[in-house]
Amino acid sequence: MQDIDLIICGGKALLMDDHNTCLEKAAIAIHASSILNVGKTEDILPKYNAKKTINAEGSLILPGLVNCHTHAAMTCFRGIADDLELMDWLNHYIFPAEAKNVDPHLAYWGSLLATAEMIKSGTTTFCDMYIFEDETARAAKAAGMRCLLGEVLFDFPSPSCKTPEEGLAYTRMLAEKWHHDPLINIMVEPHALYTCSPALLRNAQKIADNYQLMLGVHLLENQSECRELQEKFGKSAVAFLEDIGYLHERLLAFHCVCFSAEDMDLFAKYGCKVSHNPASNMKLASGVAPVPDMLKAGITVGLGTDGCASNNTLDMIREMSTAAKLHKVARLDPTVMDAQTVVRMATINGAKALNMDHLIGSLEVGKKADIIILGMHKPHLTPIYSECSHLVYAANGADVDTVIINGKVVMENRQLLTIHELDVMNEVREIAVKIKKSMNM
Amino acid sequence: MQDIDLIICGGKALLMDDHNTCLEKAAIAIHASSILNVGKTEDILPKYNAKKTINAEGSLILPGLVNCHTHAAMTCFRGIADDLELMDWLNHYIFPAEAKNVDPHLAYWGSLLATAEMIKSGTTTFCDMYIFEDETARAAKAAGMRCLLGEVLFDFPSPSCKTPEEGLAYTRMLAEKWHHDPLINIMVEPHALYTCSPALLRNAQKIADNYQLMLGVHLLENQSECRELQEKFGKSAVAFLEDIGYLHERLLAFHCVCFSAEDMDLFAKYGCKVSHNPASNMKLASGVAPVPDMLKAGITVGLGTDGCASNNTLDMIREMSTAAKLHKVARLDPTVMDAQTVVRMATINGAKALNMDHLIGSLEVGKKADIIILGMHKPHLTPIYSECSHLVYAANGADVDTVIINGKVVMENRQLLTIHELDVMNEVREIAVKIKKSMNM
Repeated sequence: MQDIDLIICGGKALLMDDHNTCLEKAAIAIHASSILNVGKTEDILPKYNAKKTINAEGSLILPGLVNCHTHAAMTCFRGIADDLELMDWLNHYIFPAEAKNVDPHLAYWGSLLATAEMIKSGTTTFCDMYIFEDETARAAKAAGMRCLLGEVLFDFPSPSCKTPEEGLAYTRMLAEKWHHDPLINIMVEPHALYTCSPALLRNAQKIADNYQLMLGVHLLENQSECRELQEKFGKSAVAFLEDIGYLHERLLAFHCVCFSAEDMDLFAKYGCKVSHNPASNMKLASGVAPVPDMLKAGITVGLGTDGCASNNTLDMIREMSTAAKLHKVARLDPTVMDAQTVVRMATINGAKALNMDHLIGSLEVGKKADIIILGMHKPHLTPIYSECSHLVYAANGADVDTVIINGKVVMENRQLLTIHELDVMNEVREIAVKIKKSMNM
Repeated sequence: MQDIDLIICGGKALLMDDHNTCLEKAAIAIHASSILNVGKTEDILPKYNAKKTINAEGSLILPGLVNCHTHAAMTCFRGIADDLELMDWLNHYIFPAEAKNVDPHLAYWGSLLATAEMIKSGTTTFCDMYIFEDETARAAKAAGMRCLLGEVLFDFPSPSCKTPEEGLAYTRMLAEKWHHDPLINIMVEPHALYTCSPALLRNAQKIADNYQLMLGVHLLENQSECRELQEKFGKSAVAFLEDIGYLHERLLAFHCVCFSAEDMDLFAKYGCKVSHNPASNMKLASGVAPVPDMLKAGITVGLGTDGCASNNTLDMIREMSTAAKLHKVARLDPTVMDAQTVVRMATINGAKALNMDHLIGSLEVGKKADIIILGMHKPHLTPIYSECSHLVYAANGADVDTVIINGKVVMENRQLLTIHELDVMNEVREIAVKIKKSMNM
């Protein structure tokens, strides 16, 4: 018997491997940060002597969910303004609230609150873009969450960086500081084509090339952006990105609501990735991204929640439900975005969208042990004909009982083990008091 | 000090009265089945000597949610088939599964499971249409839930009634049997205009008139039904309903996805009610009902989940979120269906849609004590700028802690007090084993 750290046994496991394997009475052997073995409980249990055993009988075992786009610290602005015209919302609520309030303290505690919420709803990896991202990295590290994050780059000053050059320097600092970290991964994130000059975009690209980092950018989120960029470049924004050498396998574009067939062909040709954020696209009335067409074109599409000011939840299980249903009604075709496709989008394809599928996204030997366990003995999940169907159409984040990231149990029976939940909520409540005051609310 | 049964105190209350009153540190005094007093905790507490006190500090107090359209017993078919063409889904899965399996036993246990799920997600009243509805009434009675229900009427045989006449007789039996019940209310429910002859519709109307009951009917759920009925009647289905005297204040129509401006004018003119079921409309790719236009026309619109085969959840809090977001993206207008409008739709306007607003739907003196309490001390509900916003955009059914129906506590701290949850789940699991066998699954 081999001595190992952890065994999960007795549950049904959706491995999210290439064959969509569903294992009854599965067991997963974990040592240090990695998955050592996956198989039937009766075969796995006799081989190992585990320091800890988690009995997952009656539960569903899944790879941790991958949130491909969020702004974690914006939990502090959750619900501060809704149901408004986009420019009214941004100019009179979000931008002033940010300008007056966002500092390293808010960025840290807002991000830590986000990690608490994400772990409690089954997310183990998140991709983040905001200001003071070193604070978000520190919060993720404290929570034991995996992330891919970058400082947002603008032409104009942000609370963290006065100039585009400072933003680029901050990005290089992040890349150096977190280079060897097992959980924190850095990317380069120019905000969008309407907020970054071609010069800034090129400088961002240089850093990404130097350090071999992912590039992330908001792209064609709504029709007015699409029209504005078409006018500015005299061609499609995606064609412009091709011109400046931005289309490659390390590009992850957020939203892509207004993608034409030509845009999709270019993304497919160069292996660019997309984060689809349907709840945000609905709430902000941005539009419906042509995701079924993107999938047909062969584009890797992950799923994201966007930030808490525009969703207003980080629950990826709800995001799956929204993704599955939105495209059905938009196309009047109930067969698109079936449950299996959507669960893959939230796991292995999310991992692919972040170029992290060699590490995460499926339960396979050698991958990192990022695993979630959902309790299924509940009225709203009874009876069970298909676990995939329940995950997408009936479950919600509160059904996640236990979460393991990088081999470490970070939540067990809904108790967070790395984060002091009450302290974090109290800190953010105090921050919100100041925000309200600053906004005369 | 007056002796009373129950006081809820210390929480923030959204009364859902005509002024959308929001009371800080509210208290609600309850005696027998009714609300005796509503006010500030400091004013209410000294006046009463309550047998039981529920401390709702840090919690949100709301009228119980009203689910205006479901098929409770269909929990037994939750997730049996998804992501299929409507006719494939109905003809190859739902109809055969029903024909082979639905009997009084399934109807009772499936309905009881539905009541467990509904109570656990904050619903206190549901409007139901299915077969063997006496079993659903018995289940609701056992669970202590309020309902408005009727036996579905078809031209063709159902598992419970061999002929339309048997269906009408069953309806009369329900009306007589439950006439004086405080929780169970009966309505008359011809299934739809494409499954009921004009003669059956008229006979249904007669019963409704005799007993002064509500009439419920599926109406214009999708484009193919709309085309079929237009061809059949040579006019709009709603105009046909006007011809046969169906348009009046006791008509509740389910779905109404393909409503024209003329249809809306007629519904407004006659005071007919609509149940909007957005998640089902999305999942079955039925289309987007013109709800913002209905509201402008002055139609009373409630919210419903539809049955578990087509949603697949009975969580009205999720349904609110879906309702708020769907119309924003469908119209590319983020200002439609604001949070307040949607919460009213799920409470007082739902009560109006069922013609039960003299009894339920708001927290006002003299109304029945149907009340829910949500715990708000959670990462995904932190911070709080607006309770309404959180209800619609951030909360989910699992945030409901305590539920009171007709003055009786039916769930406290998420423990069901009227239903033995494990027994119900086990019964339905056994039923599902038989269903799978009957379908060669």
